[in-house]
Amino acid sequence: MSLTNASPIECAKAARAASRRLAILSTQERNDGLTAIHHALAEAKDSILAANESDVVSATEASQRGELSQSVLKRLDLSRPGKWDDMLQGVLDVRALEDPIGKIDYRMELDDDLICQRKSCPIGVLLIIFEARPEVIANIASLALKSGNAAILKGGSETTASFQAISTVIAKALTTTAVPNDALQLVTTREAVQPLLQLDKYIDLVIPRGSNALVRHCQTQTTIPVLGHADGLCSVYLCADAEPEMAARVLVDAKTGYPAACNAVETLLVDATALSTLLPAVATTLSKHGVQLRCDAASHAALSRALPDDIRGSAIQTATPEDFDTEFLDLVLAIKTVGIDNARSCTSNGDNNAAAFSPDAALDEAIAHINTHGSHHTDAIVTASATRADAFLAGVDSACVFWNTSTRMADGQRFGFGTEVGISTNKIHARGPVGLEGLTIYKYEIRGKGQVAGEYGGKGGRVWKHRRLAVD
Amino acid sequence: MSLTNASPIECAKAARAASRRLAILSTQERNDGLTAIHHALAEAKDSILAANESDVVSATEASQRGELSQSVLKRLDLSRPGKWDDMLQGVLDVRALEDPIGKIDYRMELDDDLICQRKSCPIGVLLIIFEARPEVIANIASLALKSGNAAILKGGSETTASFQAISTVIAKALTTTAVPNDALQLVTTREAVQPLLQLDKYIDLVIPRGSNALVRHCQTQTTIPVLGHADGLCSVYLCADAEPEMAARVLVDAKTGYPAACNAVETLLVDATALSTLLPAVATTLSKHGVQLRCDAASHAALSRALPDDIRGSAIQTATPEDFDTEFLDLVLAIKTVGIDNARSCTSNGDNNAAAFSPDAALDEAIAHINTHGSHHTDAIVTASATRADAFLAGVDSACVFWNTSTRMADGQRFGFGTEVGISTNKIHARGPVGLEGLTIYKYEIRGKGQVAGEYGGKGGRVWKHRRLAVD
Repeated sequence: MSLTNASPIECAKAARAASRRLAILSTQERNDGLTAIHHALAEAKDSILAANESDVVSATEASQRGELSQSVLKRLDLSRPGKWDDMLQGVLDVRALEDPIGKIDYRMELDDDLICQRKSCPIGVLLIIFEARPEVIANIASLALKSGNAAILKGGSETTASFQAISTVIAKALTTTAVPNDALQLVTTREAVQPLLQLDKYIDLVIPRGSNALVRHCQTQTTIPVLGHADGLCSVYLCADAEPEMAARVLVDAKTGYPAACNAVETLLVDATALSTLLPAVATTLSKHGVQLRCDAASHAALSRALPDDIRGSAIQTATPEDFDTEFLDLVLAIKTVGIDNARSCTSNGDNNAAAFSPDAALDEAIAHINTHGSHHTDAIVTASATRADAFLAGVDSACVFWNTSTRMADGQRFGFGTEVGISTNKIHARGPVGLEGLTIYKYEIRGKGQVAGEYGGKGGRVWKHRRLAVD
Repeated sequence: MSLTNASPIECAKAARAASRRLAILSTQERNDGLTAIHHALAEAKDSILAANESDVVSATEASQRGELSQSVLKRLDLSRPGKWDDMLQGVLDVRALEDPIGKIDYRMELDDDLICQRKSCPIGVLLIIFEARPEVIANIASLALKSGNAAILKGGSETTASFQAISTVIAKALTTTAVPNDALQLVTTREAVQPLLQLDKYIDLVIPRGSNALVRHCQTQTTIPVLGHADGLCSVYLCADAEPEMAARVLVDAKTGYPAACNAVETLLVDATALSTLLPAVATTLSKHGVQLRCDAASHAALSRALPDDIRGSAIQTATPEDFDTEFLDLVLAIKTVGIDNARSCTSNGDNNAAAFSPDAALDEAIAHINTHGSHHTDAIVTASATRADAFLAGVDSACVFWNTSTRMADGQRFGFGTEVGISTNKIHARGPVGLEGLTIYKYEIRGKGQVAGEYGGKGGRVWKHRRLAVD
């Protein structure tokens, strides 16, 4: 890894050249690079923690001046229990993953001695922009190396001293390996990002991790493909037939497990017939966890009737239309009733609604609401009916669609990917949690014996065999 | 299919809504749509050919005024032998392909009764801009329908009458099926394209088929992902150990089979030691096919010595540096020698070169030249050595990399995909010839029994099983 003072174009060109050498290294050579990084980091623990402490001191001062949030301050401290060891273990965990490169997933016999196969290969050069978390640099460097991609890294400026210390150690470690030094480059100034976003000839993929604003900036400022997500407006649809205890458990986890996460729930859709049966208990449990409920007219009326005064007063508010397009990232949940026409839902009480309720219409309304107002990230249904669940999973146009479990399950580690570079709401390439596989593309190889296209077809021409072959 | 006079945003919104209904149709329902299209087209043959004739008349006049090339004129005539039948057969061929939607390619047991699986699904709404070939509209409409995607189609303006006639027939046919009418929409004015490129909220993928200028325009004017390729600068690397007859056959096919195609060869790289052995015969054969050779100093010197006067005079020219960055799309081939240092190659003769020749350096030079000057589309090596071929296939960063066969093999039909929407040089999502599979993405489904993320990890928490399951 080089800590680059080169111009953005020199940096990108060097990364490109290095990417081609990296792409043809063996699994062993790339794994050896990870071993070298792990050992070097372990040996340099004291100097890296000293550099990190200087970041912490500066950040604490900035925090005291009110220029930095407590949560950022907390995240950048590498001396907190377990953090250093987790960082080192992360390098070994990535090394232990199956090599995503060189895998053949398709093989076709076009004709005798003319075999076409599709083989996974690295994408090339990644530009990864990430938050002020010092351990992430080791994690992302490991993922890039394992997947054979060169990477240009730009981390949050509050941890520049830590990043510089870590990258110096990694750079030195890699000189003893087959990994080209320019394969990993750290840029430390924010000014370098904009010119890099213009270099679509040398950079193949931008992965911004961080605020919605950062992601949107990248999406609009570059013609390079951008992998990731801006919003995480996730919904849970609570059906009238849901098991009450499960409904409460799923919603508490989805809303309160980590409210600032992209996979936290922001909107609860609820069957009109569940307003007086399921919703009051769920709302009570959520309010006990400090969740504020922003309710549409029907759910507001139902909860006003059902809940005791103390909860009603503190936890229930009237929703505005904007609430259903808002990623709160906080202990706030918007509630919308589905399955009755609006006029009726605003005036009638819960019991009368049952007469007008159509389960299919409610399901369609919930799906349509999610597809229109959601961010195509993760949405869940809680229902006892497999038929309804299947229709929901098919109808909702999101990267992750869940039945009877929390939206918080949307995570590479929970999915068993070992690690993730992020969660993508893209509709092409990698979608959902993105692990090593999402950092690869493929190429088609044909091995022949001199056959040419002009021999085939027409009168008297050869006929294609097109026989699908097994892959190993 | 509706022939839309709606505003671009109305058109895109309607396509989006239709895409969600189309996405949940069964295989049978989508295939029934294709059957209806096929029958309706067959019945309307006379009226469609009449409309096409009016396009041909207008185009012939434009051609006589010098405003339209003969090749465009030829392509838009639907009454040429076989064209109509091929168009109809194409619809049935697509119908016969395996359904690309709903395929599960990954399944993981996260825990007891908590199964995560990845299932293919349509991308959503495609904007496809294509050339003035009337039969393409039926082909593309079939591909979109089969893959469950809504599509907004804009065809070349020279065939507007044909497109309108065909789309009217398709629209009427689909009213008898479960396919929503707005799932296929034809826009007929060029002015509609620019506003559509801005609608990234409703359109998921742009597929421009046509000139490099059109593709570049789309790439720079939209934040919607663009699938396809601008340039097709393909190379063939001729090694000294190649079988002479095979070398000539491959190069004649790659250069002269269809010189205007994106998969035609534009640059020939040749080992210095092959200059006096292989190249003269290959050059003679190519010149007999009317190919003009633009040679670097070493190959020019070698061919000047080896070829008879008549061929030398007419077929051989000195290459400029720009020739190695040019997609000629014509019977022109640039020739570059690899494996000797430049100073030596310019002054010494072919025999002396052998002493300085390093096969590995030549291979590296050829790979580096292709990665720098090529367009990452399709490149081939002709060699007797499997080791050299493997190194070339691994080292060249292109969608298609071939050994001992012609670059013209890069084609969905030849690959056995049944049909293609185009050839992609993208480094994410679909690369190379793109068939139905390239028009899909996936979603992750989890089916649980109320498990939540907060139960796992930490002291006393549940432990993930993460057991990979077989897919059917």
